[in-house]
Amino acid sequence: MDFSHYWSARQKKVDAALNHYLPSASTKPATIHKAMRYSIFAGGKRLRPVICLATAEVLRGKPDLALPLACAVECIHTYSLIHDDLPCMDNDDFRRGKPTSHKVFGEGIAVLAGDALLTIAFEIAASCKSWPRYSHATILREIAVTAGSQALIAGQVADAEGEGKKISPAELRYIHHNKTAALISSSIRLGAMSANATPKQLAHLTEFGESLGLAFQVIDDILDVTQTTEKLGKSAGKDIAAQKATYPALLGLKKAQKEADRLTAKARAALKPFGKDAKPLEAIADYLLKREN
Amino acid sequence: MDFSHYWSARQKKVDAALNHYLPSASTKPATIHKAMRYSIFAGGKRLRPVICLATAEVLRGKPDLALPLACAVECIHTYSLIHDDLPCMDNDDFRRGKPTSHKVFGEGIAVLAGDALLTIAFEIAASCKSWPRYSHATILREIAVTAGSQALIAGQVADAEGEGKKISPAELRYIHHNKTAALISSSIRLGAMSANATPKQLAHLTEFGESLGLAFQVIDDILDVTQTTEKLGKSAGKDIAAQKATYPALLGLKKAQKEADRLTAKARAALKPFGKDAKPLEAIADYLLKREN
Repeated sequence: MDFSHYWSARQKKVDAALNHYLPSASTKPATIHKAMRYSIFAGGKRLRPVICLATAEVLRGKPDLALPLACAVECIHTYSLIHDDLPCMDNDDFRRGKPTSHKVFGEGIAVLAGDALLTIAFEIAASCKSWPRYSHATILREIAVTAGSQALIAGQVADAEGEGKKISPAELRYIHHNKTAALISSSIRLGAMSANATPKQLAHLTEFGESLGLAFQVIDDILDVTQTTEKLGKSAGKDIAAQKATYPALLGLKKAQKEADRLTAKARAALKPFGKDAKPLEAIADYLLKREN
Repeated sequence: MDFSHYWSARQKKVDAALNHYLPSASTKPATIHKAMRYSIFAGGKRLRPVICLATAEVLRGKPDLALPLACAVECIHTYSLIHDDLPCMDNDDFRRGKPTSHKVFGEGIAVLAGDALLTIAFEIAASCKSWPRYSHATILREIAVTAGSQALIAGQVADAEGEGKKISPAELRYIHHNKTAALISSSIRLGAMSANATPKQLAHLTEFGESLGLAFQVIDDILDVTQTTEKLGKSAGKDIAAQKATYPALLGLKKAQKEADRLTAKARAALKPFGKDAKPLEAIADYLLKREN
């Protein structure tokens, strides 16, 4: 399996679909559509959509049926970054190596561009195929709950409220679980739903997604300490500067790395029932563990 | 028909349903749920949900089937107010006679509370009943398109970009149509969908909604000039202060009032096919024309 080819082929598919789903940059009012496209096409790795498509493949589903859900998830991820970077939140000037939305378009348009991406996620998702087991109501509720005040937004609130405070490992895991793992796990669940997964398959893949999502965030915390801003494409060392609780801060770098290894192994173990078919998801888990940005 | 009793009975129904749908104020993380509830229960008139329920009644549908859609629309309306009031947008300190969300909870939480209300709108709407004619995909797409970058958000962008500029009557109508009429009209359409309207009925009610929504905004502009902050519960005269284009500014007060009359008459005419059943919507149109806040 040529992993980098595997990834870039799916990345291209997602990029083309996002280009199709988003209104053109000249659609009135042009400012908002330029801002939506600026952040969506700022060079993201497309991790969430790619694992969504890969999950459908593992279940021998048609990747094209997963495509609208993959794009919806990427719109939600991008909206959350735009709002997270605002001066009233994390106040970040760079993201994916480019100036953040509010730096380019001003705060007002950045708020609205985030709003518009969150909104269009539901419009795109509503165009997916439904199954007797996974109705549009089920699929859209999955997205709304994942993006909502008891998951993605809960993570951002807890993260902001934890700044400068000493927080417990349990609280840190709560933040990671909600801020990062929930959407990664949901990307996998949505891919599974698009392939009409059995309830058992969905349960195994949810377990995989949870562990993978937590591993991803632990590694993110580690990279924030060990990598340069240039390599990351976003401000390095900002967790320390903002006095954010992280695994390296709580456990030290070595133990944090061990935790990432443990979570990745746990994720891989959840894929056992899928045998050889699970290869793409295994490769993604390994890649995420070893990534440098 | 005792109009004030009619209205308050439905308002109470909507309040009870919103209380049921929103997580309690103590649900973790408490800050976000307090903020969501603060703005939702800040004393809004519930115009959009009440016309949603009234439309279902006009079609002899069950109002309870319209209730999740009525609440979804109110969540979207409230989210748009929270974000609109932010310092980086209209910078308003008061709304419905109370300090705005960012004044109470800070800007970061206000942004997230708006995000959370927009998100939960889709979760609530997904719990509605579907019909062969109106699937969940159709209903949720209706909401996403109405709240999206070519309707509600387009209106806010055009409104912000028009500040201090001389704009044409056509451009002013574009702003009104998107900023206000789209969501009001959609509230009516969603009520109609909940009652399994025929395509013809839906077309008539859409026409009613369009004219009613435009009339509503013309009257809003007039009240901004003629009423006090106390009576409005939000800053009076702010359109002039922000050099916003309004109907009174463009046509003068007298012609603006005539335009409101004309649009209301047009709205009422679209109700003709429903005969006596249309009474609640007629009463609402008359009430909106004569309101003082």
